[in-house]
Amino acid sequence: MKLKTAILGVTGYVGQQLLSLLARHPNIDLRVLTSEKFSGRRADEAFPHLLGYSDLILSPVSKIPDSEPLDLLFSCLPGGTSSVFVRKFLEKGVRVIDLSSDLRFSDPADYSLAHGVAPRFPELLSQAVYGLSELNRERIKNAPLIANAGCYSTCVSLAVVPFLKEYEVENDIIVDIKSSFSTSGRAPKPESHYTEVKEDVSARGAGGDDQKHEILRVLYDFCGVKKKLLFFNTRIPVKRGIMATSYLRLRSEISPDEVRKLYAGFYGDDAFVRVCDEPPGMASVSGSNYISLGFCEREGHFVIVSVLDNLMKGAAGQAVQNMNIVFGFPEDTGLGQVPLFP
Amino acid sequence: MKLKTAILGVTGYVGQQLLSLLARHPNIDLRVLTSEKFSGRRADEAFPHLLGYSDLILSPVSKIPDSEPLDLLFSCLPGGTSSVFVRKFLEKGVRVIDLSSDLRFSDPADYSLAHGVAPRFPELLSQAVYGLSELNRERIKNAPLIANAGCYSTCVSLAVVPFLKEYEVENDIIVDIKSSFSTSGRAPKPESHYTEVKEDVSARGAGGDDQKHEILRVLYDFCGVKKKLLFFNTRIPVKRGIMATSYLRLRSEISPDEVRKLYAGFYGDDAFVRVCDEPPGMASVSGSNYISLGFCEREGHFVIVSVLDNLMKGAAGQAVQNMNIVFGFPEDTGLGQVPLFP
Amino acid sequence: MKLKTAILGVTGYVGQQLLSLLARHPNIDLRVLTSEKFSGRRADEAFPHLLGYSDLILSPVSKIPDSEPLDLLFSCLPGGTSSVFVRKFLEKGVRVIDLSSDLRFSDPADYSLAHGVAPRFPELLSQAVYGLSELNRERIKNAPLIANAGCYSTCVSLAVVPFLKEYEVENDIIVDIKSSFSTSGRAPKPESHYTEVKEDVSARGAGGDDQKHEILRVLYDFCGVKKKLLFFNTRIPVKRGIMATSYLRLRSEISPDEVRKLYAGFYGDDAFVRVCDEPPGMASVSGSNYISLGFCEREGHFVIVSVLDNLMKGAAGQAVQNMNIVFGFPEDTGLGQVPLFP
Amino acid sequence: MKLKTAILGVTGYVGQQLLSLLARHPNIDLRVLTSEKFSGRRADEAFPHLLGYSDLILSPVSKIPDSEPLDLLFSCLPGGTSSVFVRKFLEKGVRVIDLSSDLRFSDPADYSLAHGVAPRFPELLSQAVYGLSELNRERIKNAPLIANAGCYSTCVSLAVVPFLKEYEVENDIIVDIKSSFSTSGRAPKPESHYTEVKEDVSARGAGGDDQKHEILRVLYDFCGVKKKLLFFNTRIPVKRGIMATSYLRLRSEISPDEVRKLYAGFYGDDAFVRVCDEPPGMASVSGSNYISLGFCEREGHFVIVSVLDNLMKGAAGQAVQNMNIVFGFPEDTGLGQVPLFP
Repeated sequence: MKLKTAILGVTGYVGQQLLSLLARHPNIDLRVLTSEKFSGRRADEAFPHLLGYSDLILSPVSKIPDSEPLDLLFSCLPGGTSSVFVRKFLEKGVRVIDLSSDLRFSDPADYSLAHGVAPRFPELLSQAVYGLSELNRERIKNAPLIANAGCYSTCVSLAVVPFLKEYEVENDIIVDIKSSFSTSGRAPKPESHYTEVKEDVSARGAGGDDQKHEILRVLYDFCGVKKKLLFFNTRIPVKRGIMATSYLRLRSEISPDEVRKLYAGFYGDDAFVRVCDEPPGMASVSGSNYISLGFCEREGHFVIVSVLDNLMKGAAGQAVQNMNIVFGFPEDTGLGQVPLFP
Repeated sequence: MKLKTAILGVTGYVGQQLLSLLARHPNIDLRVLTSEKFSGRRADEAFPHLLGYSDLILSPVSKIPDSEPLDLLFSCLPGGTSSVFVRKFLEKGVRVIDLSSDLRFSDPADYSLAHGVAPRFPELLSQAVYGLSELNRERIKNAPLIANAGCYSTCVSLAVVPFLKEYEVENDIIVDIKSSFSTSGRAPKPESHYTEVKEDVSARGAGGDDQKHEILRVLYDFCGVKKKLLFFNTRIPVKRGIMATSYLRLRSEISPDEVRKLYAGFYGDDAFVRVCDEPPGMASVSGSNYISLGFCEREGHFVIVSVLDNLMKGAAGQAVQNMNIVFGFPEDTGLGQVPLFP
Repeated sequence: MKLKTAILGVTGYVGQQLLSLLARHPNIDLRVLTSEKFSGRRADEAFPHLLGYSDLILSPVSKIPDSEPLDLLFSCLPGGTSSVFVRKFLEKGVRVIDLSSDLRFSDPADYSLAHGVAPRFPELLSQAVYGLSELNRERIKNAPLIANAGCYSTCVSLAVVPFLKEYEVENDIIVDIKSSFSTSGRAPKPESHYTEVKEDVSARGAGGDDQKHEILRVLYDFCGVKKKLLFFNTRIPVKRGIMATSYLRLRSEISPDEVRKLYAGFYGDDAFVRVCDEPPGMASVSGSNYISLGFCEREGHFVIVSVLDNLMKGAAGQAVQNMNIVFGFPEDTGLGQVPLFP
Repeated sequence: MKLKTAILGVTGYVGQQLLSLLARHPNIDLRVLTSEKFSGRRADEAFPHLLGYSDLILSPVSKIPDSEPLDLLFSCLPGGTSSVFVRKFLEKGVRVIDLSSDLRFSDPADYSLAHGVAPRFPELLSQAVYGLSELNRERIKNAPLIANAGCYSTCVSLAVVPFLKEYEVENDIIVDIKSSFSTSGRAPKPESHYTEVKEDVSARGAGGDDQKHEILRVLYDFCGVKKKLLFFNTRIPVKRGIMATSYLRLRSEISPDEVRKLYAGFYGDDAFVRVCDEPPGMASVSGSNYISLGFCEREGHFVIVSVLDNLMKGAAGQAVQNMNIVFGFPEDTGLGQVPLFP
């Protein structure tokens, strides 16, 4: 089975990664690629690393012909814009996977809290299934609309949910994030100008705070816990990757070995979760759809280190994983990328 | 068909890359992996990025049981050592692809010139077919022993051979190489200590001069020309990749467009050669088996810029490509890695 | 006044930085430089970036002639070895500034706790004045023996001491450290091999835990508080610099502005402490002797971000600053290095 | 003596470097700093790494009050604009050092050839003395107007002039340039967006071709030779530095030792030229005003490797050096920056 598929917004890094994955996915027939910046050009001419991968002509998102028959649409459009097009295609009966931050809360009040403005289409929110594959697989199956989980939320949620379901911790959780530059997009700006940032480590422009609320929502929905979450993001001079160092204050001592066993059980059948003996490094998952988890205990706290590739498990990779679940394909179809070492 | 396969020397970067590729190759059944450094450990425990890819126990190369039935063997052992084991397995009827520099010359005199010592098994040299896929495909088919081409030789030879077959150039060719750190191996040393090299660009320890002779041999064997070749290698702070900037002094003016057409024709059916409109950047092929070529004309010289990933098209990728040719598999089997962008 | 000066152990990064500083210090007359690795060579031949800075012949530390008249000695020898030579020269009446971790605790029990072994010369510990310039200036003046503060201790202590003297915080402090590769020395090892670490972020080999105890000692000695300190160190792919993100749980709300004023007052006359409006980036102090501090309040915690160059304010720069204090020179003599931007 | 000094255009990297140097120069009294981007802000607030270095308020270049008494002016304005202001202040009797590319040719025809347009003020060209300190020192003394040499021209000219004055070479010279990202300015653009370039090596956007003509002019003026020069520039992922690999085809064999002696004699008294035993690495001069030169002989060519820090000896450092020469200060005043190692 080949799904007639569109990707909206292939210009940015997430769109580029998704195009790379779908161009080789056995169940995908790419029919539409949109790009405002490169519209009118052949895809593989605009993106030299993809020479030979697609001869589709890039079109503006507003110019997709109504006659184009589509089974599936991925939107990598920016938050705020994405839901406009998601809604339009959903009404036509197209299955949609939205990679923006528009539809990740079912409650409009949560959206407003996270984004500081009300959602554009409140009624759309309740239709979207939250696309965090490992935790929400049953609801993802056959869903018409998936709100792909955010990169920080995926990295933190998969790291702490099994723990919080099992153990009691003090009220507040501290998450110290180390994030790569691809998390802040493809548009050139001073905060990502090579010469200035290559030897810098800084909180400047790191952002991601809206996903604090997304994580809180996950903790409540999947563990039933209400916590305070201190989310602090520092930009690190690497291209790809997110590391979350989560500090959880314990009520009683727990051994890392016990926790490792708990996690190994929890994620037993999950192809993309790796439970490690040591806190993992970011490079160990680079270019792949894995998330790796490691643990240690210090000074009455439990420290969980989680790493993923923000463009893969944090975005395009998980979108493909969710798509595989929706349509009942083997969950790792098209996701066999080995971490790039070195 | 699944070939019972051994990889000798999986510890280093070339061995690691080859293991990544073969672990997912549909025609390969990995049976033996050797590593002196990690012998006794499970492969995917020793190499955390490959967790789940292979549960074989790593053994020393000297301890491969005689009873092990093998169809195919790849050697990533160091030059000098590799031919000892190549010879042994070849005699048993195992097909061999040697990635070392031991067998790349058919004439012992050339070997001596390049390496400063005589070859260990001169009689082995004439049995080995030079594994530069695009130029030597017909001889590679069904060959029992392949001497996989060197990374610098591949990058320079594929760049200049079509030109030299067609046009006359002055006697000497200058090749200015920019090479990444993975070309100098995995053993820690001052010249690759992070703190010292990250902001450096230097000829120190760049090496590769033995491949100057390999390239000269290719030019003679495939173009019938004898040239002087000035090979100058500068180490650049990137992980993967080689760029060769080849300066050829012309007798008469030639337009880049004409040359592009020539190359497009020459490499018409080759899946892994990209003829570009602009001199390509190293990152455009990173992680993939492509070599990209670009051209310009300046001051009576023709400048050819070629880039490849030294661990892929420069080593393990081309080894798999050669293996596909030897056994008649589609040439890109197991080599669908998209260049990693960004 | 010119002090006849020796530096023991100039091979490593701290020794190199110190040699750079002292070669241009107006009150220093360099007489002895030791290096085991480069002994017998001229200093500026062994260290090409210092060509023309010193024609002294490097000698092994054991071969310093007894006849050499010295006023001052800096030891950059490794912990464990340093105190042997410190003791010897101290007995001869030479003033000593020790940059190792041998003498940073006055109480042998603290030393044992931090290092897991007893100190070699317990009696020496009580003679050493702790060399954290801004906090201990009065005792440093005229002291015969200075134990230069550690890089992590300096970065954390200067960041949290004014806060803890003024405000009450919950019992435990979490310090998430981001550290550069020069903190782990000049000896090549897999954990600092360029190809493997350039795109990695990892806790592997980050170390520094002995300085947790050093910080606890400072907090007790200078603020009178006993705390639990969770110290977690992650290695970041930059050459120079340390960032400490300190999380302090508050009993009541405090505004960053109020804290900024407190710090501006506390460090009012200190040339090398910068109180910033925003959490500072590591590059903003690179190559200089500054430490920069920034603040924010989140979820009932106060977050203090501090950055310094580990080879300067974290080691050699502070050693020179301490020396200036000992001898009554203006505190910034020889320390006018502007942060390198970009 | 303190010169009342203005810097026009301190926003960019050259302006920033110059401000760093002049803020600590004993003969400089900074009175005016212009910046279009940051006008109205305090200098050390706009440039956090310079906190405490200057409390001047940045003004637009068009708003410098006529009443401001100035002895000296440095212009770091862009080419095309710079000469407008240079002319204005020169007419007022202010000494001017222009760091732009506006005035580096005395012959308007050369300017037109290099820039593709005619010079704005042809009469100004003949008044400007070319500011390549080591080669033109006598004419720089007391000159009212200096056209500071370009970064590529300095790196290549100082490397090849002594050679070409002494030896005959074939007609064409090939210069393969490796250049850092600070050579292409501070304005964010796709070609310098961190995520895309950090692992790339590419000729894209490298530019600098106008300096080919500047170099040809130097070769003619200082050696009396007319050559063809092939200038090919590749961008390398480092912050600071230029390496020029110059290939000169010989008529007869010359030993590197002989050449080293020649250069040592030629640059005997020059504080900032280092003649090395090995081809030098870029990092060995980073942050300093040195240029380092190394040599080898290969295949009938002489290869000269030269490195400098493009913001120092390639721009702001040499501007200060020229200023010292103009006013008769010791040539290294304010230029004691030690190369930053590591």
